[in-house]
Amino acid sequence: MSEKKKIYKPKPISGFPEWLPETRRAEQQWFDHIRRVFESYGFCSIETPSVEALDAINAKGGDGGADTDKEMYVLERLHKEEGDKEARLALHFDQTVPLARYTAQHFNELVFPFKRYQMQRVWRGERPQAGRFREFYQCDIDVINVDTLPLHFDAEMPAIIWEILSSLPGMEDEKIQIQISNRKILIGLLEGLGIENVIEVTRWIDKLDKLDKNTVANELAGIGLSDENINTILSLALIKVSSSKELIAGISTSNQNDTMKEGIEELSFVLDQLQHLPNNAVVADLSIVRGLDYYTGTVYETRFVDDPSYGSICSGGRYDDLAGNYINKNLPGVGISIGFSRLFDRIRIKNQLPVSGISPADILVILPNEEARALMMATAQTLRKRGYNVETFHGASKIKRQLAYAQKKGIPYVWFPPFEDGQSHEVKNMDTGAQDNASPEEWTK
Amino acid sequence: MSEKKKIYKPKPISGFPEWLPETRRAEQQWFDHIRRVFESYGFCSIETPSVEALDAINAKGGDGGADTDKEMYVLERLHKEEGDKEARLALHFDQTVPLARYTAQHFNELVFPFKRYQMQRVWRGERPQAGRFREFYQCDIDVINVDTLPLHFDAEMPAIIWEILSSLPGMEDEKIQIQISNRKILIGLLEGLGIENVIEVTRWIDKLDKLDKNTVANELAGIGLSDENINTILSLALIKVSSSKELIAGISTSNQNDTMKEGIEELSFVLDQLQHLPNNAVVADLSIVRGLDYYTGTVYETRFVDDPSYGSICSGGRYDDLAGNYINKNLPGVGISIGFSRLFDRIRIKNQLPVSGISPADILVILPNEEARALMMATAQTLRKRGYNVETFHGASKIKRQLAYAQKKGIPYVWFPPFEDGQSHEVKNMDTGAQDNASPEEWTK
Repeated sequence: MSEKKKIYKPKPISGFPEWLPETRRAEQQWFDHIRRVFESYGFCSIETPSVEALDAINAKGGDGGADTDKEMYVLERLHKEEGDKEARLALHFDQTVPLARYTAQHFNELVFPFKRYQMQRVWRGERPQAGRFREFYQCDIDVINVDTLPLHFDAEMPAIIWEILSSLPGMEDEKIQIQISNRKILIGLLEGLGIENVIEVTRWIDKLDKLDKNTVANELAGIGLSDENINTILSLALIKVSSSKELIAGISTSNQNDTMKEGIEELSFVLDQLQHLPNNAVVADLSIVRGLDYYTGTVYETRFVDDPSYGSICSGGRYDDLAGNYINKNLPGVGISIGFSRLFDRIRIKNQLPVSGISPADILVILPNEEARALMMATAQTLRKRGYNVETFHGASKIKRQLAYAQKKGIPYVWFPPFEDGQSHEVKNMDTGAQDNASPEEWTK
Repeated sequence: MSEKKKIYKPKPISGFPEWLPETRRAEQQWFDHIRRVFESYGFCSIETPSVEALDAINAKGGDGGADTDKEMYVLERLHKEEGDKEARLALHFDQTVPLARYTAQHFNELVFPFKRYQMQRVWRGERPQAGRFREFYQCDIDVINVDTLPLHFDAEMPAIIWEILSSLPGMEDEKIQIQISNRKILIGLLEGLGIENVIEVTRWIDKLDKLDKNTVANELAGIGLSDENINTILSLALIKVSSSKELIAGISTSNQNDTMKEGIEELSFVLDQLQHLPNNAVVADLSIVRGLDYYTGTVYETRFVDDPSYGSICSGGRYDDLAGNYINKNLPGVGISIGFSRLFDRIRIKNQLPVSGISPADILVILPNEEARALMMATAQTLRKRGYNVETFHGASKIKRQLAYAQKKGIPYVWFPPFEDGQSHEVKNMDTGAQDNASPEEWTK
């Protein structure tokens, strides 16, 4: 350390978040909670590599389509030798392409319906931009089956998501709402009306959460729709109800073709299964359409009731064909994805994350003097065996300094082994200041 | 699905492992166990981004030195625009460089001694090679302090590692041994003997686990060491003892300079603190030296007693200067790293991983008939609230089929809600076949 060194001062990399230990603890609590709920519904965990072969991504597209415009990071070996011939690898930008590839690759070894959850980082090779993550976590669940997939699972998704979001620590005061639709209803209507530019029309309908009704009506007129059709479409798309009874009552029975009827029936079934949730937890919102190519039935979005413009924090839906580009099987599925990092960061910025100590320790065992070292270690070990997280102080410093350490790290209890023979163990509650006799074999918080 | 599609058949990518759900469950159990032990000693979790700026990596080197030859993956944005000027990013190849950068960057916000654990993927941009991971998990703990770091922590590391490795599910029959040395002993001896090519000598000593004593002696003679010096060095390096008493008795008191004495004292302290561990769990092995530039005192390796040639599965040591290239502070530390994936894969290949079901569910609630759907859901919800993981069957299929599903997914209990009013709930133990009346509010496994 004596020679003068050149210092490289590190700075954050835009879009790659990193937390201090206290924030990371809250993040772990969130992951633990989400995992617990996923598993309580019998979903198993998988993890896929961080990379996929670029050829595999291009074959699949991502969210279904031939959408190879995704911003991706491709990898290059720093010390690549001349003439190396390897498949190009890219960091995955979602967990859908990896799931499709995984399901196809391991098809013969999986049990269907295959119910999996996945909580991994994904990457977007975007230009650096304030507030935009380039590395972030998603928490996905999907159910995949062969040939047909019961509607049961379409109803299970929102129940799981509600249970998670309504009890994430720090989300207690956030009003959220899951919005459900079934694409067959709107698509069926448009088909029935003989409308040809379905993609464009649904794209405008999708904007009804941001634009007002008249703006959307004008845009639809601009692409050639008649006033009558615009009225018919908008009165359907603006339906927002919370039960199948209201849904069926709300939709005009004229113009109902088979596609539409199927959609209404499916959405009714899903709503009926969710009646145990609190009022307004879930609504049928027929303006929800999502991407056109991928989803074929039920679709989900989730919004903050007080801040709908923040966009959906948890979205998904049903698809007919997960992995058709990888395997000659018909694999329908339904899934939903929590935009973990985006949600977590919002609650973090609002200062709503649960406050906890930096250390996961419940107890700091102090070292009264060097002779007591073995006793300190044994005391800590006894407490650990009983399930407590325990730090031991590293040197026989002044007690004041040892207490200050517990304070700074947020450790709630300080344990005093006897300073000399004949004395008792004592425990100090750092919150109340109370200090009492205690036994390492019997003490409880 | 009617049109003929081109199928891209996915295959595994060399060096990027991926597990089936049942193996992933075992992997989760391992992570949970390691995390629990780390936290029980008061280590906090951090995660760093998957990438570091290439300039930061080059400033630090990795494992300390100016070793920029590491095989790394650098990222390239697929749709990079002409003229984009961004720092080059590389996937981290260990967790030491990220820790150093993190500690320097957040120095003012951390509480010291900073005790952190980190369980993340790391990447090596190597040529594809059978049996070689290019993406794998490491589980690291380190303690960093400002200016001086008490030896207390050098002794804590092996205690933690022993607790983890000796109780990982599937490792029960593996005999492992943690080998400790203190580099000051050997380095002090070499200095005392006036030996100049210290790096080369230690490199040969490091090979004493693979080469026999005579081969190493010949090599040392080949680089110009006298027979007397070779004898002195080898009789020190071959010392393998399990207590400080034996250590002190084993080392000749002649030639002991201050560096050597310091090393012996430090190693003795560490051994004394580990006397509570089983016999042969930890030994002082003076042939352990590890890399020269980075470690300055205590060093650790961990081997399978029955297969030492497998190499170290958990290594580390003490370093004087964690982050001197990033911050003008003296930050000594001590740390150890479990080569998670390498260890897990060994136990997996030996078929020793705990066998568990594919589904995390304890119970499958069956659907006796469509009318009972609400009852099935309510039953499952009651059981979930009581802490059980519960799947519900998705359709009113034949009971035989529903039982087969539980069997295939390894779900240990099947729950029968009453088929009609007046009947009782029943639970079938899939292991024993016994089927008994039960109440969702009271049943226990």
